[in-house]
Amino acid sequence: MNQNKIRIKEVGPRDGLQNEKNFIATADKIAFIEMLSETGLDYIEVSSFVHPKWIPQLEDATEVLSKLKRKKGITYAALVPNLKGLEKAISVNIDEANVFMSASEGHNLANINKTIAETFPVLETVVKEAKKNQLSVRGYVSTVIGCPYDGSVKPEQVLAVVDRLIDMGVDEISLGDTIGVGVPTEVERLLEMLLSKYPASKFAMHFHDTYGTAMANIVKSLEMGITTFDSSIGGLGGCPYAKGASGNVATEDVNYLLSKMGYVTGLDSEKLLDAAYFIESKLGKSLNTKQLAISKSGVT
Amino acid sequence: MNQNKIRIKEVGPRDGLQNEKNFIATADKIAFIEMLSETGLDYIEVSSFVHPKWIPQLEDATEVLSKLKRKKGITYAALVPNLKGLEKAISVNIDEANVFMSASEGHNLANINKTIAETFPVLETVVKEAKKNQLSVRGYVSTVIGCPYDGSVKPEQVLAVVDRLIDMGVDEISLGDTIGVGVPTEVERLLEMLLSKYPASKFAMHFHDTYGTAMANIVKSLEMGITTFDSSIGGLGGCPYAKGASGNVATEDVNYLLSKMGYVTGLDSEKLLDAAYFIESKLGKSLNTKQLAISKSGVT
Repeated sequence: MNQNKIRIKEVGPRDGLQNEKNFIATADKIAFIEMLSETGLDYIEVSSFVHPKWIPQLEDATEVLSKLKRKKGITYAALVPNLKGLEKAISVNIDEANVFMSASEGHNLANINKTIAETFPVLETVVKEAKKNQLSVRGYVSTVIGCPYDGSVKPEQVLAVVDRLIDMGVDEISLGDTIGVGVPTEVERLLEMLLSKYPASKFAMHFHDTYGTAMANIVKSLEMGITTFDSSIGGLGGCPYAKGASGNVATEDVNYLLSKMGYVTGLDSEKLLDAAYFIESKLGKSLNTKQLAISKSGVT
Repeated sequence: MNQNKIRIKEVGPRDGLQNEKNFIATADKIAFIEMLSETGLDYIEVSSFVHPKWIPQLEDATEVLSKLKRKKGITYAALVPNLKGLEKAISVNIDEANVFMSASEGHNLANINKTIAETFPVLETVVKEAKKNQLSVRGYVSTVIGCPYDGSVKPEQVLAVVDRLIDMGVDEISLGDTIGVGVPTEVERLLEMLLSKYPASKFAMHFHDTYGTAMANIVKSLEMGITTFDSSIGGLGGCPYAKGASGNVATEDVNYLLSKMGYVTGLDSEKLLDAAYFIESKLGKSLNTKQLAISKSGVT
């Protein structure tokens, strides 16, 4: 792999859309994912098999994954909360199963309705079954810096969760600053601890831009050796338990940052914008990433 | 000085307002500056003595500076383009005279209607006269990373301009990424060159957030030893020659970043928000800093 190659994993269709109130038609979701497939991305998290009671927006996960025209070389992943979700996901032939939990008790309880200790065995059965089906598994760890309920989260808490997930066979851990409160010094302390035990290739960083610190946190993570980042086209998303309107850091803005710093993302900035404009038109609300603002301003 | 003390210089009333089309009443400008004076800031650039033909919004500089209730310990500065402007500025007792030019020929020509070589002697007479009047002088150097006309700007070009300004007695240089295209690797290369010759205390960094990189650039500058940053309350401002709607990096967002990183800014975040809401109400348009978005979201 090229030393300057950075991998951007697109989470817009899942993490981005899951909290949108207006239902996006299944055909539009499929068209959106197919547009993203043309941008150079090689990883797209397309939906979630969490019960529709919790995420009605993604109740069409099975249909999306069945009808989607897949492009060779792209990993199409989906969120799976438990064995039942995994079963459904396997039935529509997902490429990777993504499990999730939080580093803080408060957020884990609010989001999963279980303590952290109660969550591990559930994930363990999912990981085991996924592996039996030759699926790779990604593990999301939320609230790795701050929690809306518990406040600051210690790196030790994150390490304890990471240890267990890696023990059970999770292939990659995505570390999420779910409420976007983190600053580079905190990212540094967290990664210093994790990277003293595991290689950087085990981790992806997942930043939200609530307080405007996501890009600075990405740069710090790069400097620490991280080469995989989650982002969301159009900056879609945002946690319902988090302050502010900001969602995930925007794929098109991360692509600008990384490209200008000399990294190779393999992404086509024009096609990213096309996908952002498309989903904006379907959402019926304005998306405000930096690249969209520049494009809309019409100044050349 | 506390080793962790960072100085934020507020440029909102000048750099922020100068391109606003709707005239802000003089009394409102004064009220705005007086609110800013209560936030803990010790430096406010309040207006400009550039000819009103060029900046009609700030044609009331003399009145603003005469009527303003000044707070002890705060430096109230203003932009001065030439001897005539300086004379006016001195007549209303400014604390510091701020001269300006660009590191790139294209922007210097568009902004000042002179070549870089033609600009130096004009600034030299201003600096000399300011010094004769016991005023300190700040020098703005624009387009230190990219120029809307010339493209990339080499650190050598910036150093050549900085050399001349320091030679003529300018006390502090504010290095502006005027169109907000810079990324941390570029900031690093620029500062490596400048700091090999001058102490970090000679410089302030002035970032615009057009491409979402301002906060990352601030962190890189901090790591290089810079301790003074320009910012604009409410993210006011933006260059008419620059793409995108984004203005200066927002004071309230920079204050969050620095404070959470353990630096001491001395600023009161609630009072900063008060000032941002006040000027927003006078502008008649929505300001979209991260802190304002969080405040407006009402989530606690």
